[in-house]
Amino acid sequence: MTSKAPKEARARFRSGESGPTAGQAAGHTQANLVAVPADWAYDMLLFCQRNPKPCPVLDVTDAGAWSTPLAPGADLRTDLPRYRVWEHGELVDEPTDVVARWRGDLVSFLIGCSFTFEWALASAGVPLRHIEQGRNVAMYVTDRPCRPAGRLRGPLVVSMRPVPPRHLAAAIKESALLPAVHGSPVHCGDPGGLGIADLARPDFGDPVEAEPDDIPVFWACGVTPQAAVMASRPPYAITHAPGQMFITDARDEQYRVA
Amino acid sequence: MTSKAPKEARARFRSGESGPTAGQAAGHTQANLVAVPADWAYDMLLFCQRNPKPCPVLDVTDAGAWSTPLAPGADLRTDLPRYRVWEHGELVDEPTDVVARWRGDLVSFLIGCSFTFEWALASAGVPLRHIEQGRNVAMYVTDRPCRPAGRLRGPLVVSMRPVPPRHLAAAIKESALLPAVHGSPVHCGDPGGLGIADLARPDFGDPVEAEPDDIPVFWACGVTPQAAVMASRPPYAITHAPGQMFITDARDEQYRVA
Repeated sequence: MTSKAPKEARARFRSGESGPTAGQAAGHTQANLVAVPADWAYDMLLFCQRNPKPCPVLDVTDAGAWSTPLAPGADLRTDLPRYRVWEHGELVDEPTDVVARWRGDLVSFLIGCSFTFEWALASAGVPLRHIEQGRNVAMYVTDRPCRPAGRLRGPLVVSMRPVPPRHLAAAIKESALLPAVHGSPVHCGDPGGLGIADLARPDFGDPVEAEPDDIPVFWACGVTPQAAVMASRPPYAITHAPGQMFITDARDEQYRVA
Repeated sequence: MTSKAPKEARARFRSGESGPTAGQAAGHTQANLVAVPADWAYDMLLFCQRNPKPCPVLDVTDAGAWSTPLAPGADLRTDLPRYRVWEHGELVDEPTDVVARWRGDLVSFLIGCSFTFEWALASAGVPLRHIEQGRNVAMYVTDRPCRPAGRLRGPLVVSMRPVPPRHLAAAIKESALLPAVHGSPVHCGDPGGLGIADLARPDFGDPVEAEPDDIPVFWACGVTPQAAVMASRPPYAITHAPGQMFITDARDEQYRVA
Protein backbone atom coordinates (compact mmCIF):
# COMPACT_ATOMS: atom_id res chain seq x y z
CA MET A 1 0.00 0.00 0.00
CA THR A 2 1.38 3.38 -0.98
CA SER A 3 0.02 6.67 0.24
CA LYS A 4 0.40 10.26 -0.84
CA ALA A 5 -0.27 11.50 2.68
CA PRO A 6 3.38 12.02 3.76
CA LYS A 7 4.31 13.78 0.51
CA GLU A 8 1.25 16.02 0.73
CA ALA A 9 2.01 16.89 4.36
CA ARG A 10 5.61 17.74 3.48
CA ALA A 11 4.41 19.92 0.57
CA ARG A 12 2.17 21.89 2.96
CA PHE A 13 5.08 22.41 5.35
CA ARG A 14 7.35 23.34 2.45
CA SER A 15 4.90 26.07 1.49
CA GLY A 16 5.10 27.54 4.99
CA GLU A 17 2.40 25.77 7.04
CA SER A 18 3.47 24.86 10.58
CA GLY A 19 2.07 23.14 13.68
CA PRO A 20 2.26 19.82 15.55
CA THR A 21 2.28 16.70 13.38
CA ALA A 22 0.70 14.22 15.83
CA GLY A 23 -2.12 12.43 14.10
CA GLN A 24 -1.01 13.33 10.58
CA ALA A 25 -0.21 10.93 7.69
CA ALA A 26 -1.58 7.92 9.54
CA GLY A 27 0.75 4.92 9.74
CA HIS A 28 3.82 6.74 8.47
CA THR A 29 6.93 7.08 10.55
CA GLN A 30 7.69 10.50 11.99
CA ALA A 31 11.21 11.58 12.91
CA ASN A 32 13.05 14.06 15.09
CA LEU A 33 15.81 16.06 13.39
CA VAL A 34 19.11 17.16 14.85
CA ALA A 35 21.84 18.44 12.52
CA VAL A 36 25.32 19.23 13.84
CA PRO A 37 28.64 20.15 12.22
CA ALA A 38 30.62 17.13 10.94
CA ASP A 39 33.17 17.74 13.68
CA TRP A 40 30.44 16.88 16.22
CA ALA A 41 28.86 14.01 14.28
CA TYR A 42 30.78 11.20 15.99
CA ASP A 43 29.88 12.52 19.44
CA MET A 44 26.21 12.76 18.41
CA LEU A 45 26.13 9.28 16.86
CA LEU A 46 27.84 7.82 19.94
CA PHE A 47 25.44 9.74 22.21
CA CYS A 48 22.56 8.15 20.32
CA GLN A 49 24.12 4.68 20.50
CA ARG A 50 24.64 5.03 24.24
CA ASN A 51 21.11 6.33 24.81
CA PRO A 52 19.02 4.22 22.45
CA LYS A 53 15.69 4.67 24.25
CA PRO A 54 15.52 8.47 23.70
CA CYS A 55 17.71 8.49 20.56
CA PRO A 56 16.89 5.58 18.23
CA VAL A 57 18.63 6.54 14.98
CA LEU A 58 16.59 5.94 11.82
CA ASP A 59 19.04 7.57 9.39
CA VAL A 60 22.20 9.69 9.26
CA THR A 61 22.96 11.82 6.19
CA ASP A 62 26.33 12.48 4.64
CA ALA A 63 27.73 15.92 5.53
CA GLY A 64 25.86 18.70 3.78
CA ALA A 65 23.17 16.44 2.29
CA TRP A 66 19.50 17.32 2.83
CA SER A 67 18.04 14.13 1.39
CA THR A 68 17.27 10.80 3.05
CA PRO A 69 16.24 7.38 1.75
CA LEU A 70 13.39 7.51 4.29
CA ALA A 71 11.58 10.00 2.05
CA PRO A 72 12.90 10.19 -1.53
CA GLY A 73 12.48 13.69 -2.96
CA ALA A 74 12.07 15.33 0.43
CA ASP A 75 14.22 18.31 1.46
CA LEU A 76 15.25 18.32 5.12
CA ARG A 77 15.75 22.10 4.95
CA THR A 78 12.12 22.92 4.06
CA ASP A 79 9.83 19.96 4.68
CA LEU A 80 9.42 20.17 8.44
CA PRO A 81 6.74 22.48 9.85
CA ARG A 82 9.13 24.47 12.01
CA TYR A 83 12.82 24.42 12.96
CA ARG A 84 15.00 25.63 15.77
CA VAL A 85 18.44 27.12 15.11
CA TRP A 86 21.03 26.95 17.89
CA GLU A 87 24.32 28.79 18.36
CA HIS A 88 26.49 27.67 21.28
CA GLY A 89 23.43 26.07 22.87
CA GLU A 90 21.29 29.21 22.63
CA LEU A 91 18.08 29.26 20.59
CA VAL A 92 18.56 32.02 18.00
CA ASP A 93 15.72 31.42 15.54
CA GLU A 94 12.56 29.37 14.94
CA PRO A 95 11.97 29.59 11.18
CA THR A 96 9.71 27.49 8.95
CA ASP A 97 12.63 26.65 6.66
CA VAL A 98 16.42 26.63 7.09
CA VAL A 99 17.59 27.07 3.50
CA ALA A 100 19.50 30.25 4.41
CA ARG A 101 20.74 28.66 7.63
CA TRP A 102 22.12 25.47 6.04
CA ARG A 103 25.83 24.69 6.07
CA GLY A 104 27.86 22.32 3.94
CA ASP A 105 29.26 20.55 7.00
CA LEU A 106 25.94 19.68 8.66
CA VAL A 107 25.30 16.00 9.38
CA SER A 108 21.60 15.33 9.96
CA PHE A 109 20.33 12.70 12.36
CA LEU A 110 16.76 11.44 11.97
CA ILE A 111 15.60 9.93 15.23
CA GLY A 112 12.51 7.84 15.92
CA CYS A 113 9.45 9.61 17.33
CA SER A 114 6.74 8.37 19.67
CA PHE A 115 4.07 9.70 17.30
CA THR A 116 4.94 6.60 15.29
CA PHE A 117 3.62 4.21 17.91
CA GLU A 118 0.51 6.25 18.56
CA TRP A 119 -1.14 4.46 15.64
CA ALA A 120 -0.39 1.12 17.23
CA LEU A 121 -1.81 2.40 20.52
CA ALA A 122 -4.93 3.77 18.83
CA SER A 123 -5.43 0.49 16.95
CA ALA A 124 -5.29 -1.32 20.30
CA GLY A 125 -8.01 0.98 21.66
CA VAL A 126 -5.77 3.19 23.82
CA PRO A 127 -7.20 6.75 23.98
CA LEU A 128 -4.74 9.51 23.04
CA ARG A 129 -5.76 12.54 25.10
CA HIS A 130 -3.56 15.11 23.37
CA ILE A 131 -4.97 14.23 19.95
CA GLU A 132 -8.55 14.22 21.32
CA GLN A 133 -7.83 17.68 22.77
CA GLY A 134 -6.13 18.99 19.61
CA ARG A 135 -2.90 19.70 21.44
CA ASN A 136 0.79 18.97 21.08
CA VAL A 137 2.02 16.13 23.30
CA ALA A 138 3.43 17.19 26.69
CA MET A 139 7.22 16.81 27.08
CA TYR A 140 9.32 17.16 30.22
CA VAL A 141 13.00 17.42 31.09
CA THR A 142 13.78 14.77 33.74
CA ASP A 143 16.44 14.52 36.44
CA ARG A 144 17.91 11.41 34.78
CA PRO A 145 21.21 12.12 33.03
CA CYS A 146 21.91 10.48 29.70
CA ARG A 147 25.15 8.57 29.35
CA PRO A 148 27.61 11.18 27.98
CA ALA A 149 29.51 10.74 24.71
CA GLY A 150 32.57 12.86 24.02
CA ARG A 151 31.51 16.48 24.46
CA LEU A 152 27.79 15.69 24.57
CA ARG A 153 25.80 15.33 27.77
CA GLY A 154 22.35 16.24 28.95
CA PRO A 155 19.16 15.05 30.66
CA LEU A 156 16.63 12.52 29.44
CA VAL A 157 13.52 14.19 27.99
CA VAL A 158 10.22 12.28 28.06
CA SER A 159 6.81 12.57 26.46
CA MET A 160 3.80 11.84 28.67
CA ARG A 161 0.43 10.36 27.80
CA PRO A 162 -2.33 9.84 30.39
CA VAL A 163 -3.52 6.22 30.03
CA PRO A 164 -6.56 4.62 31.72
CA PRO A 165 -5.42 1.64 33.84
CA ARG A 166 -7.38 -0.87 31.74
CA HIS A 167 -5.37 0.22 28.67
CA LEU A 168 -1.94 0.18 30.34
CA ALA A 169 -1.00 -3.33 29.28
CA ALA A 170 -1.80 -2.64 25.62
CA ALA A 171 0.02 0.72 25.69
CA ILE A 172 3.14 -0.88 27.11
CA LYS A 173 3.08 -3.98 24.92
CA GLU A 174 2.37 -2.17 21.66
CA SER A 175 5.13 0.41 22.19
CA ALA A 176 7.58 -2.30 23.35
CA LEU A 177 7.23 -3.96 19.95
CA LEU A 178 8.50 -0.75 18.31
CA PRO A 179 11.96 -0.27 19.87
CA ALA A 180 13.11 1.90 16.94
CA VAL A 181 10.62 4.56 18.02
CA HIS A 182 11.46 4.64 21.75
CA GLY A 183 9.91 1.27 22.65
CA SER A 184 8.37 0.64 26.05
CA PRO A 185 7.81 3.43 28.61
CA VAL A 186 10.67 4.47 30.90
CA HIS A 187 8.30 5.20 33.80
CA CYS A 188 4.64 4.95 34.82
CA GLY A 189 2.90 6.86 37.62
CA ASP A 190 4.40 9.38 40.04
CA PRO A 191 6.03 12.19 38.01
CA GLY A 192 8.33 12.82 40.99
CA GLY A 193 10.10 9.57 40.12
CA LEU A 194 11.56 11.43 37.14
CA GLY A 195 12.03 14.72 38.99
CA ILE A 196 9.03 16.29 37.26
CA ALA A 197 7.44 18.81 39.64
CA ASP A 198 4.21 19.70 37.84
CA LEU A 199 2.55 17.88 34.95
CA ALA A 200 0.58 21.05 34.17
CA ARG A 201 3.79 22.82 33.18
CA PRO A 202 5.58 20.82 30.47
CA ASP A 203 8.97 21.98 29.26
CA PHE A 204 7.94 21.47 25.63
CA GLY A 205 4.55 21.07 23.95
CA ASP A 206 1.18 21.61 25.63
CA PRO A 207 -0.29 20.54 28.97
CA VAL A 208 -2.78 17.71 28.42
CA GLU A 209 -5.88 17.12 30.53
CA ALA A 210 -6.16 13.68 32.11
CA GLU A 211 -9.27 11.82 33.25
CA PRO A 212 -9.40 11.17 37.03
CA ASP A 213 -8.22 7.54 36.87
CA ASP A 214 -5.59 8.03 34.18
CA ILE A 215 -2.01 7.00 34.94
CA PRO A 216 0.71 9.23 33.50
CA VAL A 217 2.92 7.10 31.26
CA PHE A 218 6.34 8.43 30.23
CA TRP A 219 8.22 7.47 27.11
CA ALA A 220 11.77 8.50 26.20
CA CYS A 221 11.58 11.41 23.75
CA GLY A 222 13.54 12.47 20.68
CA VAL A 223 13.79 16.00 22.04
CA THR A 224 16.59 14.59 24.22
CA PRO A 225 19.33 15.46 21.66
CA GLN A 226 17.96 19.01 21.68
CA ALA A 227 18.42 19.12 25.45
CA ALA A 228 21.98 17.84 24.88
CA VAL A 229 22.56 20.71 22.44
CA MET A 230 21.34 23.15 25.10
CA ALA A 231 23.55 21.58 27.78
CA SER A 232 26.68 20.90 25.69
CA ARG A 233 26.71 24.02 23.52
CA PRO A 234 28.09 22.87 20.16
CA PRO A 235 28.88 25.95 18.03
CA TYR A 236 25.94 25.33 15.71
CA ALA A 237 22.92 23.04 15.42
CA ILE A 238 19.57 22.86 13.66
CA THR A 239 16.69 20.82 15.08
CA HIS A 240 12.95 20.44 14.52
CA ALA A 241 10.64 22.41 16.81
CA PRO A 242 9.29 19.99 19.46
CA GLY A 243 6.20 18.17 18.21
CA GLN A 244 6.66 19.47 14.64
CA MET A 245 8.28 16.44 13.08
CA PHE A 246 9.66 15.21 9.78
CA ILE A 247 7.07 12.88 8.22
CA THR A 248 8.80 10.08 6.29
CA ASP A 249 7.48 7.67 3.68
CA ALA A 250 8.47 4.74 5.92
CA ARG A 251 5.70 2.63 7.37
CA ASP A 252 5.35 2.14 11.11
CA GLU A 253 4.97 -1.63 10.60
CA GLN A 254 8.50 -1.91 9.24
CA TYR A 255 9.88 -0.97 12.67
CA ARG A 256 7.75 -3.56 14.44
CA VAL A 257 9.87 -6.44 15.65
CA ALA A 258 7.31 -9.25 15.65
CA MET B 1 20.32 -14.06 39.59
CA THR B 2 24.05 -13.57 39.30
CA SER B 3 26.42 -16.10 37.83
CA LYS B 4 30.17 -16.58 37.89
CA ALA B 5 30.10 -18.36 34.54
CA PRO B 6 31.07 -15.37 32.33
CA LYS B 7 33.90 -14.30 34.65
CA GLU B 8 35.21 -17.87 34.86
CA ALA B 9 35.10 -18.25 31.08
CA ARG B 10 36.97 -14.96 30.62
CA ALA B 11 39.59 -16.05 33.17
CA ARG B 12 40.20 -19.25 31.19
CA PHE B 13 40.62 -17.27 27.98
CA ARG B 14 42.85 -14.77 29.78
CA SER B 15 45.12 -17.63 30.77
CA GLY B 16 45.46 -18.69 27.14
CA GLU B 17 42.62 -21.13 26.46
CA SER B 18 40.96 -20.68 23.05
CA GLY B 19 38.12 -22.17 20.99
CA PRO B 20 34.52 -21.43 19.97
CA THR B 21 32.28 -19.99 22.68
CA ALA B 22 28.90 -21.27 21.44
CA GLY B 23 27.10 -22.97 24.30
CA GLN B 24 29.26 -21.39 27.03
CA ALA B 25 28.09 -19.28 30.01
CA ALA B 26 24.43 -20.07 29.40
CA GLY B 27 22.11 -17.07 29.17
CA HIS B 28 24.87 -14.48 29.02
CA THR B 29 25.25 -12.16 26.08
CA GLN B 30 28.18 -12.80 23.75
CA ALA B 31 29.69 -10.07 21.59
CA ASN B 32 31.76 -9.60 18.45
CA LEU B 33 34.74 -7.26 18.73
CA VAL B 34 36.07 -4.86 16.14
CA ALA B 35 38.57 -2.19 17.19
CA VAL B 36 39.68 0.51 14.74
CA PRO B 37 41.78 3.68 15.04
CA ALA B 38 39.80 6.71 16.31
CA ASP B 39 40.13 8.26 12.85
CA TRP B 40 37.95 5.40 11.53
CA ALA B 41 35.51 5.24 14.44
CA TYR B 42 32.83 7.48 12.93
CA ASP B 43 32.82 5.46 9.71
CA MET B 44 32.52 2.24 11.70
CA LEU B 45 29.74 3.55 13.95
CA LEU B 46 27.84 4.86 10.93
CA PHE B 47 28.40 1.55 9.10
CA CYS B 48 26.84 -0.22 12.09
CA GLN B 49 23.93 2.23 12.23
CA ARG B 50 23.26 1.76 8.52
CA ASN B 51 23.49 -2.03 8.77
CA PRO B 52 21.78 -2.81 12.07
CA LYS B 53 20.91 -6.43 11.28
CA PRO B 54 24.55 -7.61 10.99
CA CYS B 55 26.00 -4.86 13.23
CA PRO B 56 23.81 -4.23 16.30
CA VAL B 57 26.07 -2.17 18.58
CA LEU B 58 26.01 -3.17 22.25
CA ASP B 59 28.81 -0.83 23.40
CA VAL B 60 31.52 1.49 22.09
CA THR B 61 34.58 2.26 24.21
CA ASP B 62 36.41 5.54 24.50
CA ALA B 63 39.66 5.61 22.48
CA GLY B 64 42.35 3.43 24.05
CA ALA B 65 40.08 1.96 26.73
CA TRP B 66 39.91 -1.82 27.14
CA SER B 67 37.04 -1.89 29.63
CA THR B 68 33.29 -1.97 29.08
CA PRO B 69 30.27 -1.63 31.38
CA LEU B 70 28.99 -4.87 29.83
CA ALA B 71 31.58 -6.79 31.90
CA PRO B 72 33.11 -4.81 34.78
CA GLY B 73 36.68 -5.93 35.42
CA ALA B 74 37.10 -7.55 32.03
CA ASP B 75 40.03 -6.69 29.77
CA LEU B 76 39.18 -6.57 26.07
CA ARG B 77 42.86 -7.19 25.23
CA THR B 78 43.06 -10.59 26.94
CA ASP B 79 39.62 -11.96 27.72
CA LEU B 80 38.58 -13.26 24.31
CA PRO B 81 39.71 -16.77 23.30
CA ARG B 82 41.43 -15.65 20.12
CA TYR B 83 41.94 -12.43 18.14
CA ARG B 84 42.71 -11.41 14.61
CA VAL B 85 45.06 -8.51 13.85
CA TRP B 86 44.65 -6.69 10.53
CA GLU B 87 46.97 -4.31 8.68
CA HIS B 88 45.52 -2.62 5.59
CA GLY B 89 42.87 -5.34 5.41
CA GLU B 90 45.38 -8.20 5.55
CA LEU B 91 45.32 -10.74 8.38
CA VAL B 92 48.76 -10.54 10.02
CA ASP B 93 48.32 -12.43 13.31
CA GLU B 94 45.86 -14.61 15.27
CA PRO B 95 47.08 -14.36 18.88
CA THR B 96 45.28 -15.31 22.10
CA ASP B 97 45.86 -11.84 23.52
CA VAL B 98 46.56 -8.42 22.00
CA VAL B 99 48.32 -6.65 24.87
CA ALA B 100 51.42 -6.03 22.75
CA ARG B 101 49.26 -5.14 19.74
CA TRP B 102 47.09 -2.56 21.52
CA ARG B 103 47.21 1.11 20.55
CA GLY B 104 46.08 4.19 22.46
CA ASP B 105 43.84 5.32 19.60
CA LEU B 106 41.80 2.11 19.26
CA VAL B 107 38.03 2.46 19.63
CA SER B 108 36.40 -0.90 20.34
CA PHE B 109 32.95 -1.84 19.09
CA LEU B 110 31.10 -4.68 20.81
CA ILE B 111 28.46 -6.04 18.48
CA GLY B 112 25.61 -8.43 19.23
CA CYS B 113 26.15 -12.13 18.46
CA SER B 114 23.69 -14.79 17.40
CA PHE B 115 25.03 -17.13 20.09
CA THR B 116 22.96 -14.93 22.40
CA PHE B 117 19.64 -16.04 20.91
CA GLU B 118 20.64 -19.70 20.77
CA TRP B 119 19.50 -20.01 24.38
CA ALA B 120 16.08 -18.69 23.44
CA LEU B 121 15.96 -21.15 20.53
CA ALA B 122 17.04 -24.05 22.73
CA SER B 123 14.44 -23.10 25.35
CA ALA B 124 11.80 -23.21 22.62
CA GLY B 125 12.92 -26.73 21.65
CA VAL B 126 14.82 -25.80 18.48
CA PRO B 127 17.74 -28.22 17.96
CA LEU B 128 21.15 -26.56 17.46
CA ARG B 129 23.08 -28.87 15.17
CA HIS B 130 26.50 -27.21 15.53
CA ILE B 131 26.39 -27.47 19.32
CA GLU B 132 25.16 -31.09 19.13
CA GLN B 133 28.09 -31.79 16.80
CA GLY B 134 30.63 -29.88 18.91
CA ARG B 135 31.47 -27.52 16.07
CA ASN B 136 31.74 -23.80 15.47
CA VAL B 137 28.71 -22.32 13.69
CA ALA B 138 29.00 -22.11 9.87
CA MET B 139 29.38 -18.58 8.46
CA TYR B 140 29.24 -17.43 4.83
CA VAL B 141 30.06 -14.30 2.86
CA THR B 142 26.98 -13.39 0.77
CA ASP B 143 26.53 -11.46 -2.47
CA ARG B 144 24.49 -8.80 -0.67
CA PRO B 145 26.40 -5.54 -0.19
CA CYS B 146 26.04 -3.65 3.06
CA ARG B 147 25.10 0.01 2.83
CA PRO B 148 28.49 1.82 2.77
CA ALA B 149 29.49 4.46 5.33
CA GLY B 150 32.37 6.81 4.57
CA ARG B 151 35.35 4.65 3.66
CA LEU B 152 33.76 1.41 4.85
CA ARG B 153 32.01 -1.04 2.58
CA GLY B 154 31.71 -4.80 2.32
CA PRO B 155 29.38 -7.78 1.96
CA LEU B 156 26.82 -9.09 4.42
CA VAL B 157 28.10 -12.14 6.32
CA VAL B 158 25.58 -14.65 7.68
CA SER B 159 25.56 -17.55 10.12
CA MET B 160 23.52 -20.62 9.16
CA ARG B 161 21.66 -23.10 11.32
CA PRO B 162 19.78 -26.09 9.87
CA VAL B 163 16.27 -26.04 11.37
CA PRO B 164 13.60 -28.77 11.08
CA PRO B 165 10.45 -27.29 9.46
CA ARG B 166 8.32 -27.89 12.54
CA HIS B 167 10.69 -25.66 14.54
CA LEU B 168 10.93 -22.85 11.97
CA ALA B 169 8.20 -20.68 13.46
CA ALA B 170 9.76 -20.80 16.94
CA ALA B 171 13.26 -20.12 15.58
CA ILE B 172 12.06 -17.06 13.67
CA LYS B 173 9.82 -15.71 16.42
CA GLU B 174 12.32 -16.16 19.26
CA SER B 175 15.16 -14.49 17.35
CA ALA B 176 12.87 -11.68 16.16
CA LEU B 177 12.28 -10.73 19.80
CA LEU B 178 16.03 -10.15 20.19
CA PRO B 179 16.79 -7.44 17.60
CA ALA B 180 19.94 -6.35 19.47
CA VAL B 181 21.51 -9.71 18.62
CA HIS B 182 20.65 -9.78 14.89
CA GLY B 183 16.91 -10.42 15.29
CA SER B 184 14.95 -12.43 12.73
CA PRO B 185 16.65 -14.37 9.91
CA VAL B 186 17.59 -12.56 6.69
CA HIS B 187 16.86 -15.63 4.55
CA CYS B 188 15.49 -19.17 4.76
CA GLY B 189 16.03 -21.97 2.26
CA ASP B 190 17.98 -21.91 -1.02
CA PRO B 191 21.57 -20.77 -0.26
CA GLY B 192 21.77 -19.52 -3.86
CA GLY B 193 19.43 -16.71 -2.85
CA LEU B 194 22.37 -15.23 -0.95
CA GLY B 195 24.97 -16.18 -3.54
CA ILE B 196 26.26 -19.05 -1.38
CA ALA B 197 27.52 -21.81 -3.69
CA ASP B 198 28.17 -24.66 -1.26
CA LEU B 199 26.98 -25.00 2.33
CA ALA B 200 29.69 -27.60 2.93
CA ARG B 201 32.35 -24.91 2.48
CA PRO B 202 31.72 -22.07 4.90
CA ASP B 203 33.93 -18.97 4.73
CA PHE B 204 34.31 -18.96 8.54
CA GLY B 205 33.67 -21.59 11.21
CA ASP B 206 32.91 -25.26 10.53
CA PRO B 207 30.57 -27.07 8.14
CA VAL B 208 27.57 -28.41 10.03
CA GLU B 209 25.70 -31.59 9.15
CA ALA B 210 21.98 -31.19 8.54
CA GLU B 211 19.20 -33.76 8.84
CA PRO B 212 17.43 -34.55 5.54
CA ASP B 213 14.38 -32.35 6.14
CA ASP B 214 16.24 -29.42 7.73
CA ILE B 215 15.86 -25.99 6.18
CA PRO B 216 18.97 -23.80 6.20
CA VAL B 217 18.16 -20.61 8.09
CA PHE B 218 20.47 -17.60 7.70
CA TRP B 219 20.94 -14.86 10.26
CA ALA B 220 22.97 -11.66 9.79
CA CYS B 221 26.35 -12.15 11.46
CA GLY B 222 28.71 -9.95 13.47
CA VAL B 223 31.64 -11.08 11.34
CA THR B 224 30.29 -8.55 8.79
CA PRO B 225 32.49 -5.70 10.15
CA GLN B 226 35.46 -8.02 9.75
CA ALA B 227 34.53 -8.50 6.08
CA ALA B 228 34.32 -4.69 5.84
CA VAL B 229 37.84 -4.45 7.26
CA MET B 230 39.04 -6.90 4.61
CA ALA B 231 37.27 -4.99 1.82
CA SER B 232 37.99 -1.43 2.97
CA ARG B 233 41.53 -1.82 4.27
CA PRO B 234 41.78 0.55 7.24
CA PRO B 235 45.46 0.85 8.26
CA TYR B 236 44.90 -1.17 11.45
CA ALA B 237 42.19 -3.22 13.15
CA ILE B 238 41.80 -5.86 15.81
CA THR B 239 38.84 -8.25 15.83
CA HIS B 240 37.81 -11.45 17.57
CA ALA B 241 38.43 -14.71 15.70
CA PRO B 242 35.10 -15.85 14.20
CA GLY B 243 33.07 -17.88 16.69
CA GLN B 244 35.46 -17.02 19.57
CA MET B 245 33.48 -14.27 21.22
CA PHE B 246 33.65 -11.89 24.14
CA ILE B 247 31.38 -13.24 26.89
CA THR B 248 29.75 -10.36 28.79
CA ASP B 249 27.99 -10.25 32.15
CA ALA B 250 24.82 -8.99 30.44
CA ARG B 251 21.81 -11.26 30.41
CA ASP B 252 20.17 -12.27 27.16
CA GLU B 253 16.75 -11.39 28.58
CA GLN B 254 17.68 -7.74 28.84
CA TYR B 255 17.82 -7.52 25.06
CA ARG B 256 14.41 -9.11 24.63
CA VAL B 257 11.85 -6.55 23.54
CA ALA B 258 8.67 -8.12 24.94
